[in-house]
Amino acid sequence: MSEGTLIVYSGPSGVGKGTILRPYLESHPEAVLSVSVTTRAPRPGETDGVEYHFITREEFDRLAKSDGLLEHAEYSGNCYGTPRAAVERHIAEGRDVVLEIEVQGAMKIRESFPEAVFVFILPPSYGTLHERLAGRGTETPEAMEARLRTARFELSHAAEYDYVIVNDDVEKAREQLGAIITAAKCRTRNMKKFIDKVCEFHEYA
Amino acid sequence: MSEGTLIVYSGPSGVGKGTILRPYLESHPEAVLSVSVTTRAPRPGETDGVEYHFITREEFDRLAKSDGLLEHAEYSGNCYGTPRAAVERHIAEGRDVVLEIEVQGAMKIRESFPEAVFVFILPPSYGTLHERLAGRGTETPEAMEARLRTARFELSHAAEYDYVIVNDDVEKAREQLGAIITAAKCRTRNMKKFIDKVCEFHEYA
Repeated sequence: MSEGTLIVYSGPSGVGKGTILRPYLESHPEAVLSVSVTTRAPRPGETDGVEYHFITREEFDRLAKSDGLLEHAEYSGNCYGTPRAAVERHIAEGRDVVLEIEVQGAMKIRESFPEAVFVFILPPSYGTLHERLAGRGTETPEAMEARLRTARFELSHAAEYDYVIVNDDVEKAREQLGAIITAAKCRTRNMKKFIDKVCEFHEYA
Repeated sequence: MSEGTLIVYSGPSGVGKGTILRPYLESHPEAVLSVSVTTRAPRPGETDGVEYHFITREEFDRLAKSDGLLEHAEYSGNCYGTPRAAVERHIAEGRDVVLEIEVQGAMKIRESFPEAVFVFILPPSYGTLHERLAGRGTETPEAMEARLRTARFELSHAAEYDYVIVNDDVEKAREQLGAIITAAKCRTRNMKKFIDKVCEFHEYA
């Protein structure tokens, strides 16, 4: 059985990552979305094991110290991380795993999983994203400016990914995501062992 | 209008390149198969402009000297080459162009078109290819051995391509070819200009 593919999936808040990804996951039950661990308290409506695994700071520190997290970071006093064991188990079982994580976490994944496929979702323009975030209107100007600053930081790292998808036509974007995952399995760097096997000519030479 | 994509498509004789490619071309009329020029005489059933553009040695030399060929090579005293003008015109018009060429020509294309997508078709094993070629039974043992030697040479360069497709299930191989071409347009290296445009934040900073 061949290994699954790790898909690292990023893009600024408000760009439509979930809208593009959801139908893919629904039509590919062999693909799993990795659930992060966090030390922050669940918000109303959040379920442990669905949005996040909610754990204590002590449990988090133990995981981090035992190399149990593929990447982790602290935001506003809360810790977030990607549990290594579940990802490695699914990949070994031949299942594809999607990590929806931010840019800095993604770059750490590249160190431990260089064969992962890195996909970044872009807005058609920064202006579109600005309007979409401003249109939410549920935030203070300061919170909104912080969110836009983060968006600009994330966008400025898009070129470090393998593929970018422009979310100007959601159906096209969904088709492109599917194509990228299919194509990623054919990338030469993921097929080296197979190529070597086909090139064993000695018994015919 | 955005530019088309150049697809460099290779694989050993007998691997099934045409069987995989044909339905793609039929369902994508915007994609064109580049027709090579050759100095060899047409075989019975071949039509000028379909299998090849049949030209004289003088015409060939003039094209080659005026940088009119993207790549060219000589086999058994006959010259073959990819005419540059048609490829560049189609790409500029936004059409995808497929070059079905051998390994050495492909590597020359990489120098002038680094943004092209390089796809190599692999047999499930060398044994399968060996059987398929032997099964044709229309050749002398010497011609057959020459063909297998060329196949081994080509296979040993598969790792230099961007993507490999294993032709063990032709429907799957066709789907993978389509996905690779769609995904190639999303490769970050082909999207740099667009990424730079989205990252023009100055008017918002």
